[in-house]
Amino acid sequence: MKKTVCALHSELVRYGLVAWTAGNVSGRIPGEDLFVIKPSGVSYDDLTPDTMVVCDLDGNLVEGDYAPSSDTAAHAYIYRHMPEVGGVVHTHSTYASAWAARGEAIPCVLTAMADEFGGEIPIGPFALIGGDDIGRGLVDTLKGHRSPAVLMQNHGVFTIGATPKAAVKAAVMCEDVARTVHVARQLGSVIPIEPKHIDALYDRYQNVYGQRSSK
Amino acid sequence: MKKTVCALHSELVRYGLVAWTAGNVSGRIPGEDLFVIKPSGVSYDDLTPDTMVVCDLDGNLVEGDYAPSSDTAAHAYIYRHMPEVGGVVHTHSTYASAWAARGEAIPCVLTAMADEFGGEIPIGPFALIGGDDIGRGLVDTLKGHRSPAVLMQNHGVFTIGATPKAAVKAAVMCEDVARTVHVARQLGSVIPIEPKHIDALYDRYQNVYGQRSSK
Amino acid sequence: MKKTVCALHSELVRYGLVAWTAGNVSGRIPGEDLFVIKPSGVSYDDLTPDTMVVCDLDGNLVEGDYAPSSDTAAHAYIYRHMPEVGGVVHTHSTYASAWAARGEAIPCVLTAMADEFGGEIPIGPFALIGGDDIGRGLVDTLKGHRSPAVLMQNHGVFTIGATPKAAVKAAVMCEDVARTVHVARQLGSVIPIEPKHIDALYDRYQNVYGQRSSK
Amino acid sequence: MKKTVCALHSELVRYGLVAWTAGNVSGRIPGEDLFVIKPSGVSYDDLTPDTMVVCDLDGNLVEGDYAPSSDTAAHAYIYRHMPEVGGVVHTHSTYASAWAARGEAIPCVLTAMADEFGGEIPIGPFALIGGDDIGRGLVDTLKGHRSPAVLMQNHGVFTIGATPKAAVKAAVMCEDVARTVHVARQLGSVIPIEPKHIDALYDRYQNVYGQRSSK
Repeated sequence: MKKTVCALHSELVRYGLVAWTAGNVSGRIPGEDLFVIKPSGVSYDDLTPDTMVVCDLDGNLVEGDYAPSSDTAAHAYIYRHMPEVGGVVHTHSTYASAWAARGEAIPCVLTAMADEFGGEIPIGPFALIGGDDIGRGLVDTLKGHRSPAVLMQNHGVFTIGATPKAAVKAAVMCEDVARTVHVARQLGSVIPIEPKHIDALYDRYQNVYGQRSSK
Repeated sequence: MKKTVCALHSELVRYGLVAWTAGNVSGRIPGEDLFVIKPSGVSYDDLTPDTMVVCDLDGNLVEGDYAPSSDTAAHAYIYRHMPEVGGVVHTHSTYASAWAARGEAIPCVLTAMADEFGGEIPIGPFALIGGDDIGRGLVDTLKGHRSPAVLMQNHGVFTIGATPKAAVKAAVMCEDVARTVHVARQLGSVIPIEPKHIDALYDRYQNVYGQRSSK
Repeated sequence: MKKTVCALHSELVRYGLVAWTAGNVSGRIPGEDLFVIKPSGVSYDDLTPDTMVVCDLDGNLVEGDYAPSSDTAAHAYIYRHMPEVGGVVHTHSTYASAWAARGEAIPCVLTAMADEFGGEIPIGPFALIGGDDIGRGLVDTLKGHRSPAVLMQNHGVFTIGATPKAAVKAAVMCEDVARTVHVARQLGSVIPIEPKHIDALYDRYQNVYGQRSSK
Repeated sequence: MKKTVCALHSELVRYGLVAWTAGNVSGRIPGEDLFVIKPSGVSYDDLTPDTMVVCDLDGNLVEGDYAPSSDTAAHAYIYRHMPEVGGVVHTHSTYASAWAARGEAIPCVLTAMADEFGGEIPIGPFALIGGDDIGRGLVDTLKGHRSPAVLMQNHGVFTIGATPKAAVKAAVMCEDVARTVHVARQLGSVIPIEPKHIDALYDRYQNVYGQRSSK
């Protein structure tokens, strides 16, 4: 799991979702009340499986030579309250964060967005770092939507998945649709997709797309 | 053809037209009612000639270890109805998809656009995946235009060519002009090019540009 | 000179000024009425010094296995009428071409623009390819300005320099300032720089910047 | 220090903050009234520790084979008047320079901005190169703000830090937030962060983030 989580961080760099040391990926260790997460303030170039740290579901450091990510409490809160989640990603990616700075959900106007997010990408509350406020805002917002991504007001984006890889995919797709819908709206009105079509696209994508054994 | 189609996928990555596993290229096998296409939901990093799959013109899998792209029906419809087409490309590239989300054709205001597209890049209908609706919308729209690219409303872009490489070129140029015209329009009105000048540019480019033996 | 001109094409790719086979660099052969230019429609990956072609100042092919760039007539016109020019570059770079699609000069609101261009980047006329119209439009526009770059309406940008490298630098800086001024204007009015300050910046940069022996 | 300063220049290239030879990094030599800075007008590809030059705090060349950066006087002025500064960076990065071209400070509407800049990124005066005007404008503006970055009107951005690396980090984060806030503002109003929350975020980030021994 340390190796997997470490390798997935390079996808954040490849897709331009992070600057300097911002952003982080975590993954739940299957069958244990533990998760692996990025150390705090370490350069992406310097990440190796050995620098990854292990925390319990209260966010306490259990194993590792570094202090855990300053967003660890938010990851831990999600793992505590959503047992189906196996991976969490956080970034300040440009377009998603821009919607978040206006406190505005991203409307579902692209079939790729219906596929992956099943509707709008919702906006969560403003919350200060350092306690359970971010985690609670995330879980409360996720419960009302099919979207695996939540924009946190004035902050950035968190995504979840059954695996860390699925959460990274959601982070990549979130920025991609945040950018495309932004660009579309710059020159006029976008055409909404009817709810029944969103449902049809979401159902098909979740059940038919990709190879049988993996998503 | 598997090797050619596989290699062309890396051009989609190089030009930033695709995110994660979205997008696909196909190529007709000369002299046979078959075409090669990308497998569904496989990472661009993992594509090799052996992972490419072969389908018949009804979109049925004929050869290959993977399920074909979920857009296979649209590719097959084009090959069935347009015998002159040897390659098809589909992407959700940002700027082309943004025009598509507004349901707006891209006006011909650049000489490079007159060269390659012979006029505006048209907009096709909203259509759900899973049957012949996308293919039919594409073919109907292509018939009324010289453009090898069609924007599908709320979806993305499909391009055609005599070869898969020509279709990839059209996809690259489509995003390039979609971006430039978008940027131009952000700060005011663009100057149209007179139809007679569009015709002159298109004729010259299709017949004179490049080396004699290839386009 | 073939080696120099070939190598400079990779700068156009590095700075994202060109898509597919668009764009070209040429360089006058010192002491001769000849210049080296890119072959027409050849991929940037496939350019080698041997693929470069040599033309006379009327744009006729003198040496080389390929047809010369379709913009050769415009380059030749500049070399014929401006003996001080040793290099010419042409691109359809996004932001410069966007200003060109509106037929609008780029105002001088950045000190880096005063340094390199000595004022606005002017707009030249709409002109069809295939004769001397583009070249004449370029030379006429260059004569009224200090700028080594001209935006050709609905088309793209041409830059000149004492050497091919200086022309490439002007093409890179032109796109850079076209982008920054575009972005600045998106959210309101830009502050002009007083003409006397533009003169002071231009004079200093042309005479003091860089190492003594080279620019 | 020459090695450190040389290596940090590649971060400016990696994050796309500089075009051609623009931009520069300097670092104070601990315990001496000297600093290391980039030579003027040398390509980023050609920078090696040996090409770096050493200047005294009046900006005079003390050691090195090249003329120092044309921005050396501004760096020297900062080192003379702000003894706590160990590194200075200057760029014309696109989004920061766009705010500067409008003469507009960047409002603090992102938690990442509160973390790093402790409030708005302020705008300094228009000042001509060649004397102490730029340096004076910078130091005067820095004194009224917690921000390690200042936008100089019509020019670009300067950042400071306790080390050259911290100044480079500030330059990277400045462009990142300049871009995100720009994008946010394009589609409407951004939500301000309350001053008490900005204070809480800034205090926490400056004191808790990262590993104990380094920032």
